[in-house]
Amino acid sequence: MAMTQLQEMGRRAKEASRSLGAMSSQRKNEALGAIAARLEAEAESILEANRLDMEAAKLAGMSPSLQDRLLLTEERIYAIARSVREVARFPDPVGKVLSGGVNPNGMRVRKVSVPLGVVGMIFEARPNVTVDSAVLCLKSSNACILRGGKEAIRTATRLEEVMRSALEQAGVPADCIQLVKDISRNSAAEMMRLNQYLDVLIPRGGAGLIRSVVENATVPVIETGTGNCHVYVDASADLEMACRIVDNAKTSRPSVCNAIENVLIHRDVAEMFLPMMKKALDQHQVQLRGCPETVRILGDCVIPASPEDYDTEFLDYILAVKIVGSAKEAIEHINLHGTGHSECIVTRDYENSQRFVSEVDAAAVYVNASTRFTDGGEFGLGAEIGISTQKLHARGPMGVEELTSYKYIVEGDGQIR
Amino acid sequence: MAMTQLQEMGRRAKEASRSLGAMSSQRKNEALGAIAARLEAEAESILEANRLDMEAAKLAGMSPSLQDRLLLTEERIYAIARSVREVARFPDPVGKVLSGGVNPNGMRVRKVSVPLGVVGMIFEARPNVTVDSAVLCLKSSNACILRGGKEAIRTATRLEEVMRSALEQAGVPADCIQLVKDISRNSAAEMMRLNQYLDVLIPRGGAGLIRSVVENATVPVIETGTGNCHVYVDASADLEMACRIVDNAKTSRPSVCNAIENVLIHRDVAEMFLPMMKKALDQHQVQLRGCPETVRILGDCVIPASPEDYDTEFLDYILAVKIVGSAKEAIEHINLHGTGHSECIVTRDYENSQRFVSEVDAAAVYVNASTRFTDGGEFGLGAEIGISTQKLHARGPMGVEELTSYKYIVEGDGQIR
Repeated sequence: MAMTQLQEMGRRAKEASRSLGAMSSQRKNEALGAIAARLEAEAESILEANRLDMEAAKLAGMSPSLQDRLLLTEERIYAIARSVREVARFPDPVGKVLSGGVNPNGMRVRKVSVPLGVVGMIFEARPNVTVDSAVLCLKSSNACILRGGKEAIRTATRLEEVMRSALEQAGVPADCIQLVKDISRNSAAEMMRLNQYLDVLIPRGGAGLIRSVVENATVPVIETGTGNCHVYVDASADLEMACRIVDNAKTSRPSVCNAIENVLIHRDVAEMFLPMMKKALDQHQVQLRGCPETVRILGDCVIPASPEDYDTEFLDYILAVKIVGSAKEAIEHINLHGTGHSECIVTRDYENSQRFVSEVDAAAVYVNASTRFTDGGEFGLGAEIGISTQKLHARGPMGVEELTSYKYIVEGDGQIR
Repeated sequence: MAMTQLQEMGRRAKEASRSLGAMSSQRKNEALGAIAARLEAEAESILEANRLDMEAAKLAGMSPSLQDRLLLTEERIYAIARSVREVARFPDPVGKVLSGGVNPNGMRVRKVSVPLGVVGMIFEARPNVTVDSAVLCLKSSNACILRGGKEAIRTATRLEEVMRSALEQAGVPADCIQLVKDISRNSAAEMMRLNQYLDVLIPRGGAGLIRSVVENATVPVIETGTGNCHVYVDASADLEMACRIVDNAKTSRPSVCNAIENVLIHRDVAEMFLPMMKKALDQHQVQLRGCPETVRILGDCVIPASPEDYDTEFLDYILAVKIVGSAKEAIEHINLHGTGHSECIVTRDYENSQRFVSEVDAAAVYVNASTRFTDGGEFGLGAEIGISTQKLHARGPMGVEELTSYKYIVEGDGQIR
């Protein structure tokens, strides 16, 4: 039976991943350096490809904020190249002895970190994700198969060519980095079931994409990035601080997953807090969608919230507001409606703070700090390939360590059991 | 919409898991002690339930080796109770600070181990798995929903009753341990898609069960226990040692996943090794299925191997044999046909040993020792809930540590980004 194009890519990726597993840190870092240098040297041809994508996007009526995500500039390309050089400076996550010892029968057992093998990524239109994913995989000795959005296909194709030629120049198999050119539903569906070649599949994008991958994939998946995040303002909160945190978590960058979509307010402070919060958010024209009590307090400027609003990741200047009677009720609301990403309590009450961090089921729980800190860089992982919202394998920001597995190596002299 | 029975079990498990998350180690260990004591005190009623299962199994014509897996005796119950007390003595895997520090902005960030939440197990007819799974979950603060095989349903139901009454006696919610009584295909299919309540699903059993779960589950799965394992006898091998290792790995317990199903032999030593190996395996009437060269050397006593034989987990006194031309060819064969469980090279050649452990893609790779050592006890994890053959989350034997995730706890005093 003839192989499909994707199976053939998988076969080549698997083969390339074998040579990566045994590759020295130095060789990998030289390849990363070559990628950075080539990106800079080829900036003009990359920008030319990006211009074609941008023209098509404008013709297709893409929204300005999405256009901004698609756009590359010379400055952005240089920033990408800098981040590639930063990844090269990370310690090598592969080949570390995680534990080990000598068994009573004399066998030497050690647990050693190894690459996952071949990583599949399905993502949307941001060109930098193409490079970020490829270099984090390379650093962790994984081959990767990347499938981006069709809006960025010309840019991504050019970035792939540039990276592959850099790999060849550094003596690393070019098939360590492969881009899927056939951006059809079929190619996504086939990737989700490419168990023979893919060791893991990481979807990065909107809730619809993530759901579709979780529903349909037989390849092991790491869910990332859906963030229906909350700030809970406790009865004992420093209301000035709560205001600063809500404002920062909502408006500093509304389109990212660690931005909040909801604020829960204890009834005892709602009358005082709501006008303060509204005043701060009005500076960014944030639309409020509130429960009946919120509407009663703030009046007509608040849109009555529908039940769906509490389950929606707006990624926009919109905030759902709900008044609750206790920290317990806030925790229950969060565990029911949250996506397990980042959750915050603002409080001066010790017991409530401890209860919140213990009972809220999320990758990152905050006391008196903005949810916007959930980020690989902020948590000391260097760059990140995504933020996991599941509990298996990795939770929260995933860096190069999270792209590894381990194996047990047992050396004996004839031991039997 | 009315909840199904399984949804209702899921809801109760989720609720019980919340109280487990904050439970002290001492309380959990007391509950484990109560379970052990109850199992011993109720031995007679458990044996009575088991007798009914055994009678039905005999009537249904179950094979003697499967009957032996289903059978409980007083001695076996006492052994199970002892292993429960052993689990109680393990260190608590939950609440450990895995890393942490103070960020430049003064926020205190720590990464703390937490339970997975609710663990679903789908397994077959071994009654001890019911208890092992439940107590390992309890130790790691996870609630569990167990679905065993219908052949053991009376035994499993009685074991569940005994364990739940012990939990109640110790002041722990009984719903931490729940058994699915409806052993239909429907209940298995529903469990595989119970994402709202199950945090992970662990299938334990034959290749067919595992495949079905991987194909159909939307809940994150940890694949376990399919072991198509190999011993490769290198040209430089100590042939006496190779003989001992092959014999032990095949015949000491053929029905388990770390037993070998294949032996690969370097051509240079095949003429000398095959008769030695046959003589040892003849003592256990092991059937050999060989490649044409093997048949030529050993003659008619060898059945010609079909291509499927190299992909079959016999779990029986059957061994597939193949002669290869190099360590490289052996490694390629193993990476193509193995299931990523346990693989062994017998060699005196340093370079081949290093190449084998580096290039063979499996949970455990052995030099000069039997694959039968792949086991939670042998690797120092205490008891095990299964042996993972995937690379995400956990690989190889999984103990209580592997039943945990982690969360980031961030404490600040108003930091914004």
